[in-house]
Amino acid sequence: MAHIDLGNEVPGIRGLLIYRPETAEPLGELAEVLLRGDNSLSRGERELIAAYVSRLNECVYCASSHSATAAAQLPGGGPTVQQTLADAGTAPVTEKMRALLNIAGLVQVSGRMVTADAVANARAAGATDLEIHDTVLIAAAFCMYNRYVDGLGTALPDDPAEYASGAQLLVEHGYRTPPSP
Amino acid sequence: MAHIDLGNEVPGIRGLLIYRPETAEPLGELAEVLLRGDNSLSRGERELIAAYVSRLNECVYCASSHSATAAAQLPGGGPTVQQTLADAGTAPVTEKMRALLNIAGLVQVSGRMVTADAVANARAAGATDLEIHDTVLIAAAFCMYNRYVDGLGTALPDDPAEYASGAQLLVEHGYRTPPSP
Repeated sequence: MAHIDLGNEVPGIRGLLIYRPETAEPLGELAEVLLRGDNSLSRGERELIAAYVSRLNECVYCASSHSATAAAQLPGGGPTVQQTLADAGTAPVTEKMRALLNIAGLVQVSGRMVTADAVANARAAGATDLEIHDTVLIAAAFCMYNRYVDGLGTALPDDPAEYASGAQLLVEHGYRTPPSP
Repeated sequence: MAHIDLGNEVPGIRGLLIYRPETAEPLGELAEVLLRGDNSLSRGERELIAAYVSRLNECVYCASSHSATAAAQLPGGGPTVQQTLADAGTAPVTEKMRALLNIAGLVQVSGRMVTADAVANARAAGATDLEIHDTVLIAAAFCMYNRYVDGLGTALPDDPAEYASGAQLLVEHGYRTPPSP
């Protein structure tokens, strides 16, 4: 049960978005632009960064949800996602993605952990300034979404299969569509 | 110098908002709703939560900027802000604010740190569910803004007096107005 009375039984962030539509709108728009807007990073790669940071924050709902959404959009599917979350250093991702995941992991600890060397490594592996920018902001944004979901003690789905069906809805309709109770 | 070429010399988050207008829009809208929208917490109280979390994250730009904006809108002004950031346990704030600042401090560490007891204490001190919700989301959002600002290595203003003049602009015009180079 959530820490406050949400007036609905919808698990994870979706129950919070229904509870407070005024903040749901910019929260959905931010996720839409970052994870699905035009970008040289694929949607699957950006969802992988989101899942990776959510796992580091131990946010079960977000890590499960974005792992499923990454798996649905990455060529390597679920196994690549699982290997990345277990050990990004040896996972079957490009060197550019590995360098960006390294930056995301530093941001998860603190923005102050990101060094000029970490940024130079990403650039040497082919990352553009905009990709570095978006990686930092995706990682920072999931440090928000994760804290929002866990800080209010939201419930997990009764059936873990809901993560895959939810991912399919996100792939088809995106983050702007408000969740329904 | 920032970690990436922003194409402008504007310090702190303002340079980032100019660089990436697509994400600036929801980031500004979220701050506007949380910090200035209709609420039973005053604008000064909400800015105080933002400043408090930014100080815990050691984000000099955000802590300075939101301290100035809180000071401009709180009856106790700068001294109350400084005492709160130094020691929220003894600062001259209401017991409700003290309990909400406690929740914000837990969120800063991790959403998973927020306990039913911390929420019950806030409720016993008079906090509503919506106030608890917004406190958690303000704290979570500043864990994002702080990481965004520091993760990209943005510059500080040359003149610390800019925090007070920037605060005056925020008080008058809010967070929706995009910054200009």
